[in-house]
Amino acid sequence: MSMRLHTPADYESLLDKYDTWMFDCDGVLWHGDRLIDGAVEVLSLLRSRQKKVLFVTNNATKSRKSYKGKFDQLGVEAHVDEIYGSAYAAAVYISSVIKLPKDRKVYVIGMKGMEEELRNEGVSFIGGTDPADCTTAPFSLDTFTPDPAVGAVLCGLDTAVTYTKLSKAFQYLTRADPTNPGSPKNLETCAFLATNEDSTYPAGAGLLPGAGAVSAPLRYALGRDPVAIGKPNGQMLDCIKAKVPYDPARTIMIGDRLNTDILFGQNGGLATLLVLTGITTESELTGPAPSPIVPDYVTASIGDLRVVASG
Amino acid sequence: MSMRLHTPADYESLLDKYDTWMFDCDGVLWHGDRLIDGAVEVLSLLRSRQKKVLFVTNNATKSRKSYKGKFDQLGVEAHVDEIYGSAYAAAVYISSVIKLPKDRKVYVIGMKGMEEELRNEGVSFIGGTDPADCTTAPFSLDTFTPDPAVGAVLCGLDTAVTYTKLSKAFQYLTRADPTNPGSPKNLETCAFLATNEDSTYPAGAGLLPGAGAVSAPLRYALGRDPVAIGKPNGQMLDCIKAKVPYDPARTIMIGDRLNTDILFGQNGGLATLLVLTGITTESELTGPAPSPIVPDYVTASIGDLRVVASG
Repeated sequence: MSMRLHTPADYESLLDKYDTWMFDCDGVLWHGDRLIDGAVEVLSLLRSRQKKVLFVTNNATKSRKSYKGKFDQLGVEAHVDEIYGSAYAAAVYISSVIKLPKDRKVYVIGMKGMEEELRNEGVSFIGGTDPADCTTAPFSLDTFTPDPAVGAVLCGLDTAVTYTKLSKAFQYLTRADPTNPGSPKNLETCAFLATNEDSTYPAGAGLLPGAGAVSAPLRYALGRDPVAIGKPNGQMLDCIKAKVPYDPARTIMIGDRLNTDILFGQNGGLATLLVLTGITTESELTGPAPSPIVPDYVTASIGDLRVVASG
Repeated sequence: MSMRLHTPADYESLLDKYDTWMFDCDGVLWHGDRLIDGAVEVLSLLRSRQKKVLFVTNNATKSRKSYKGKFDQLGVEAHVDEIYGSAYAAAVYISSVIKLPKDRKVYVIGMKGMEEELRNEGVSFIGGTDPADCTTAPFSLDTFTPDPAVGAVLCGLDTAVTYTKLSKAFQYLTRADPTNPGSPKNLETCAFLATNEDSTYPAGAGLLPGAGAVSAPLRYALGRDPVAIGKPNGQMLDCIKAKVPYDPARTIMIGDRLNTDILFGQNGGLATLLVLTGITTESELTGPAPSPIVPDYVTASIGDLRVVASG
């Protein structure tokens, strides 16, 4: 059973309990290009109380640097090292967890922001925004020479996804050429990674197919799922852990989606606060078929915390 | 337990038992551009015995007319009215089963052959090969005006699939505009159809993502599956039934894939013959984890039937 926050004492108690505050952004701090009322004041309040503030987003189309531009544009204080995006976390996962050797490459289904993060982590890649792959011209195996250095396929939201990209990724994930010493020996040697599994994402007036939908053709053709990095999976938190010291018992995750944000917090042993300004509606909590994912706290909007005096 | 055909008497008995012979093509009659040894002779033999011969393919990129060109090119006798492709079956399903009103349209994710079949059945459509949709330029909901006449989305193999096509299809399958009398009132009024669900298809030197992979982003984003027309589903056989009289008890389906061809035959109450010249290997029948789909008969190649004298 979630605790509903209403009174100033409720919010004051929350501030006492948690030192590190992890925020989802879209649906919590803003909707598209519109700030949630009070979000800026609440973030200032947290900073004035010496809270550590982190922003944890599944958006993989922007690098942290370009995502900071979004904060700047909306007048929200944020620093690049407070921002954790799934493209960044995927790049860190490739360089630090699976430790892809420096002479190997990633085949990318994704956009400029993902390429920036890979480049920043010193990971070589092909595909992505390469015009040769962003084409609707027919793809033929007869004229395709796989790059033997490819050791991973990373798939994120890509609004320029093509059959050529999907076909190349599929070849890398299935080919096996034991006669070529430089090429993967079997399926396992080419890692299948996805920045996140969101089925849709909010885009202005409605929803559009999300990163999970972009990797769905590969899942379907391969009959297996990628390692997904973003919320609700643990890789994103592992990435944060490696960079920022925090005490899970004194950390709270704030989000608008039960199956990504709140589950992410729960998977990481964090407290969770659901806001109702985004995807999740009241009826998913109290309706006839309530979600099995139950946040610790619920409040209508992040702006509600303004009732606490900054100190 | 399947019966293995070996002796001339085995094959002669098969010819006695069945009057209508339904063939899958790729992997049974040919591999890409190479005929299976003996296929032409066996088809001639069947015709000389007054057998009804039908060709049943999930290939939705070609119309029946252009698929006949493939037979001609390989020197295989075939007539357009003997060929049943999943694009044709989908067009018939739309015009005759769901009876889409003449003032409604289909939004197409598919290629020229699918458009030809829809046109032949008098079904209006948009999308498909329209250059405006075959683009990797960004898609924005802000500049998209849905066509209120769209009452179905049909998805098949489309090697020029784009995020724009997927996004438009997703809008048609989710939008509800009760203020517009011409537009669908809810999800159910826009049918979600797929020509077939093949995860991959053989393309020369290897496999490429199939029609099921092309519709996978929509399945994933919507959280539901389309009505699939092609093998192994019954819609394809319903389409054949409407055009060709046959007695299921005296009809045999010949194919190389257990989970499409053989299951299709079984679902339709037909006898089934598996050939081992395509996708299914011996080990799937007799290995440690045999498939639950058991054909009535098995033979190495369709060419084996040559031992029977033509009459």
